[in-house]
Amino acid sequence: MEERFRAISAADFFYRNREMAGFDNPVRSTYTICRELLENSMDACESGGYLPDIYMRLRYVDGEALEIKVEDNGKGVPRRYIKRAFGQVLFGSKYTLRQTRGIFGLGGKMAVLYGQITTNSPVHVISSTGGMERYSYKIMVDIERNEPITKGESIERNHGQWHGTVVKLKFQGDYARARAKIVDYLRHVAIIEPYSQIMFVDPDGVFYFFRRKAERMPRPPLEVLPHPQGVDVETLRRLIERFGQGSLIDFLVESFHRVGRRIALKFLRKTKLDPEMDVSELAKKEELIPKLVKAMNEFDGWLPPDPSCLSPIGSDLLEIGIRKELRPEFVAVVQRKPSTYGGHPFIVEVAIAYGGGVHAPSQGEVNLYRYANKIPLLYDVHNDVSMKVIRKIKWWRYKISPESMPIAFFIHVCSTKIPYKTVGKEYIADRPEVEYEVEWGLKEAARKLKLYLSKKRREESLKRRRAALLKYLPHIARFATELCGEKKIPDYEKLVAKEELKVKTALQRLA
Amino acid sequence: MEERFRAISAADFFYRNREMAGFDNPVRSTYTICRELLENSMDACESGGYLPDIYMRLRYVDGEALEIKVEDNGKGVPRRYIKRAFGQVLFGSKYTLRQTRGIFGLGGKMAVLYGQITTNSPVHVISSTGGMERYSYKIMVDIERNEPITKGESIERNHGQWHGTVVKLKFQGDYARARAKIVDYLRHVAIIEPYSQIMFVDPDGVFYFFRRKAERMPRPPLEVLPHPQGVDVETLRRLIERFGQGSLIDFLVESFHRVGRRIALKFLRKTKLDPEMDVSELAKKEELIPKLVKAMNEFDGWLPPDPSCLSPIGSDLLEIGIRKELRPEFVAVVQRKPSTYGGHPFIVEVAIAYGGGVHAPSQGEVNLYRYANKIPLLYDVHNDVSMKVIRKIKWWRYKISPESMPIAFFIHVCSTKIPYKTVGKEYIADRPEVEYEVEWGLKEAARKLKLYLSKKRREESLKRRRAALLKYLPHIARFATELCGEKKIPDYEKLVAKEELKVKTALQRLA
Repeated sequence: MEERFRAISAADFFYRNREMAGFDNPVRSTYTICRELLENSMDACESGGYLPDIYMRLRYVDGEALEIKVEDNGKGVPRRYIKRAFGQVLFGSKYTLRQTRGIFGLGGKMAVLYGQITTNSPVHVISSTGGMERYSYKIMVDIERNEPITKGESIERNHGQWHGTVVKLKFQGDYARARAKIVDYLRHVAIIEPYSQIMFVDPDGVFYFFRRKAERMPRPPLEVLPHPQGVDVETLRRLIERFGQGSLIDFLVESFHRVGRRIALKFLRKTKLDPEMDVSELAKKEELIPKLVKAMNEFDGWLPPDPSCLSPIGSDLLEIGIRKELRPEFVAVVQRKPSTYGGHPFIVEVAIAYGGGVHAPSQGEVNLYRYANKIPLLYDVHNDVSMKVIRKIKWWRYKISPESMPIAFFIHVCSTKIPYKTVGKEYIADRPEVEYEVEWGLKEAARKLKLYLSKKRREESLKRRRAALLKYLPHIARFATELCGEKKIPDYEKLVAKEELKVKTALQRLA
Repeated sequence: MEERFRAISAADFFYRNREMAGFDNPVRSTYTICRELLENSMDACESGGYLPDIYMRLRYVDGEALEIKVEDNGKGVPRRYIKRAFGQVLFGSKYTLRQTRGIFGLGGKMAVLYGQITTNSPVHVISSTGGMERYSYKIMVDIERNEPITKGESIERNHGQWHGTVVKLKFQGDYARARAKIVDYLRHVAIIEPYSQIMFVDPDGVFYFFRRKAERMPRPPLEVLPHPQGVDVETLRRLIERFGQGSLIDFLVESFHRVGRRIALKFLRKTKLDPEMDVSELAKKEELIPKLVKAMNEFDGWLPPDPSCLSPIGSDLLEIGIRKELRPEFVAVVQRKPSTYGGHPFIVEVAIAYGGGVHAPSQGEVNLYRYANKIPLLYDVHNDVSMKVIRKIKWWRYKISPESMPIAFFIHVCSTKIPYKTVGKEYIADRPEVEYEVEWGLKEAARKLKLYLSKKRREESLKRRRAALLKYLPHIARFATELCGEKKIPDYEKLVAKEELKVKTALQRLA
């Protein structure tokens, strides 16, 4: 009996293994569909420079199926891409070197695919980039061929030059059991993006409104060239092919991130390669490419990657977001300097909120809000690098107890490449460089909280001292006067005033 | 500025996201390459019905790179498939409904791909299915197109009608730090497959030999039709397309697993569909398909899936494997009855080994050997369903303490579809049906161990009692004799013999 061999398409692969993309069961799928469509909308708004204004609605149709509609004011999808952007797996705009929420070009298509395999109905997309027309498509996926199938299309007049995208699809889900996670997710989003406005109408008609609290957005990320530190044989080969003919030094300067002539020359001198050698020669000598890669990975004279391809939230916006949703008594926000792992730049932002609307966590838990490229991570917390760091830090040194005090932690990692372990984007793998930044960010924020708490404790002790003074001084004065046989009680008010001045000065010194 | 949209190939996707397939870093990649090639070899042997005889060698070449060579006596790859089987992602023989180690058609190709992007060198494959010729190919992957590139090919005479495959490739790895995991992996394999013989020569020249201890293999799995319980719109649509024209009842009987005419009629009566209706009509009415799927998923009259597509180890082989590698004092093996989740049949096999070569685990740990379709799972134990169950069971009820006693647990789940969470095959996701079987398997094995331990304790107490008797009886007899003024000491030997008989009977009763 001979083995049967065959090829399957990328769509077929992810259809067969959909649990990897977060489509395990109806509950989880409901959550995943909401977040994937929402994240696409957010990316579309931010890369267009528009303050996100997103409307999401879920409702029951045809008895038991759910219908989701997500509408955004983003830049829209150009007409010629709409069909493939929603009907072909591994097709998208996210395959570039800059920070986006989506990176796999999978999420939206998986939602479409899941809708299709549970209800046999197409996705309905309406989009416009702001011109005179808007385009309406009904699309299904030919899973075996990984191609879009058009089930209907029309062109409409675009009144008011609207730009954005509306996605509508039906699927078998379970909203009742997914509700808590979805609302939690939206609340997480509202914290990290106080500049977004999100409206959500759930199938029971409940209206959730997350109001915009800031009118400015973080600077959008720019696309960058690959960094020589993170290059591998395949990347180098592709870059050589794309470059065509020219000298090695020109190739280095033009193809890589932050490589100038001076640095390129220094590198080539060290590796004993001729700067004027033609690049096409490299492709011919196959053993040369891995050597060059190795030299590039190991050379320590490159400039660190420029974080312009990243778009962190920024301390002020993060603080606005936290204050808006949690109303804490105190917030400490820390933005770490850009760092890199394997040629990928990343920035860690950390915050600790204390008191007010923040409650102590339940037994054995920690209030931890995790984000990666502005995506809230709600699953698999115990595998996450942040949790590992929180467990490691000796909190008693900061007079903090994360398990019994009303404290919440916020950790945002942004990078051109988040080290996810699954396409479901659930947790951040354990990279030493990321771990280091999270740890020092948390420690810095913890120091701020320690200062605040010790100041608070001293203020309270000063106040108690003053109260005690004012309570006993009149009695002591009277008693002392009587004891000496004097008649006139001395002016202890003066003494109190002096003491009060002292207290005030002490408090000001602390402030 | 318009967004740039583009498609990437499946090879490119997995190249970009290789950490998902276990290629995070040089250490992990070294381990992953070994296990992926080994698993392919095992599958090739078992599906051909050959007792696996596998030779794996790692050595340093060209300074720092590693070269791996894996040779098996499996059924070999037919000539026309060799290039694609090693040079095209998502091409393979694993896309069928039966139990195999590989399921993604990814592992071997990822090894080739990783070798290529770190050393720019091709994989060298020699294979024969046992005919007059053997075929030798040097292959690289065109990652952007997901196509094999032939770098060399030749045909050799196949002396002795050898069948099997030899794979040789170079990669940048880190054996020193991967060694412990690789050896641990091989030892896990030797436990679950005592019918395999594995030789491994590591780069330092150390020779590891896992000798075959059983001359028979579990029955190889058969390919089956899809079960109606687990069908979705896409599967039904494909089956309808493949079936062509014919009546609905014939379609059901011929396209599904364990559906006979009687059951099919019962189902159609319940769903009020005409058994003689032409199937091609179904494809025309699109809303009918999801309704039919729903009815099929919910109908409770189907026969449970036949486990012939599964290939569990069997209690006797599992016990041989455990005894061979761990030399315990006692082993309890339990094979649960076949069960299903979402239309996928699965079988859970559980064993508990005690004492002898089994040591108590280190502080806070548990000795747990996890397997899925005979694949050892060594990473991410804390997410695994087995660990969850072990934490849940009230072990004191069985007078067992997994954390302080010399106990090891073995859990093997085999299924046509293991609910993995990543393509790296690291742990089994949490399915209630699987959890239930693991729990009851463990409890049954625990009861056996409890019996053994209490028998052991009673034996020991009986022995102690007898020893005490024999120690004091002569003295008591003598003393009593003297006390009565008698001369002749009574025949207490008789009494002891009687007592010994009692002990023996008691022990026999317990046995």
